[in-house]
Amino acid sequence: MPRAKEFEPEEALTKAMHQFWAKGYHDTSIRDLVERTGVNYYGLYAVFESKHGLFLAALDQYRKTVTAEIVSALKRPGPLQATIRGAFDRLIELMTTADGKVGCLMANTATEVAPYDAEAAARVQAHMRQLRDAFRARLLEGQASGELGPEKDGDALAEFLATTMYSTGFLVRSGASDAQVRRYVDTALTTLT
Amino acid sequence: MPRAKEFEPEEALTKAMHQFWAKGYHDTSIRDLVERTGVNYYGLYAVFESKHGLFLAALDQYRKTVTAEIVSALKRPGPLQATIRGAFDRLIELMTTADGKVGCLMANTATEVAPYDAEAAARVQAHMRQLRDAFRARLLEGQASGELGPEKDGDALAEFLATTMYSTGFLVRSGASDAQVRRYVDTALTTLT
Repeated sequence: MPRAKEFEPEEALTKAMHQFWAKGYHDTSIRDLVERTGVNYYGLYAVFESKHGLFLAALDQYRKTVTAEIVSALKRPGPLQATIRGAFDRLIELMTTADGKVGCLMANTATEVAPYDAEAAARVQAHMRQLRDAFRARLLEGQASGELGPEKDGDALAEFLATTMYSTGFLVRSGASDAQVRRYVDTALTTLT
Repeated sequence: MPRAKEFEPEEALTKAMHQFWAKGYHDTSIRDLVERTGVNYYGLYAVFESKHGLFLAALDQYRKTVTAEIVSALKRPGPLQATIRGAFDRLIELMTTADGKVGCLMANTATEVAPYDAEAAARVQAHMRQLRDAFRARLLEGQASGELGPEKDGDALAEFLATTMYSTGFLVRSGASDAQVRRYVDTALTTLT
């Protein structure tokens, strides 16, 4: 097991992120984190200070990777509906990891931790704002190009679709079949037409 | 503090349900449950056997009370849209308790506990089936009366609306404003038109 100076913080962080993503905050022990990262207690604490510090860093890592990938899918050129559907397809892929159907770390955190933890809540809200703003920008483009009706409320739809991404993560985590997840997204996207 | 035989299990159960609802399973300690119910450790264990047994009983209590109220709102006579909106209004009221914006205990459990606990997962799924079946029955009635277009897929819409109830609970718990929750439900209900 490497000592404090001998591990790569970014790699340990990604492993810790996957641990919290699969098991949640409270049910993840320090022992789980040590086993998962391969870094001992002293090494982890030297860099992240506490389990809570490591958790917050893992949420930041999630935004830098998973959130960023979804936002980038929403910026891809192409017809409005196809682009939005493509972003949901990417989301669904990302919600299953080597640990199984883990869902969305931010949605899990919003439920489990955020009501009692302002620092975690701020990260969940930042993730939500990123998704909502990316949807809003794409919907306004679609309205300008005539792909989305002028009577549609772009702000309300952007919030709705961002929340639909949370509930898609929730559905995946709760063991819904692929067909059920697909039907849910299909029905949600009828709000665009 | 009453002894084992001296407390009312139903009342203790309702208090325990509210504790798990607000704080989740893992972050609720036996001490929290003792304080909340006013029943000592031995009393609780004599009836519910373990924290886990008490949790499962609390999930059953939720279905007997909260789930049942929502299902009953969906059975109320009246126009389709108004009935479904009325059920969402009742849901939103129920998602805020004396503990604050607690959301939906079943949605919280689906995220936090169900992936690793088959007995909890079975209760979450039963709750979901009850909601979905109540929506489906009401939607089929609406289709028969001409209030819902014949081209609409009642099964897909019923699943969608049941999942939308979970995400409404999630939104409430994550601290969304009343206006945001309202906009989310309004947008989701455009799938019916």
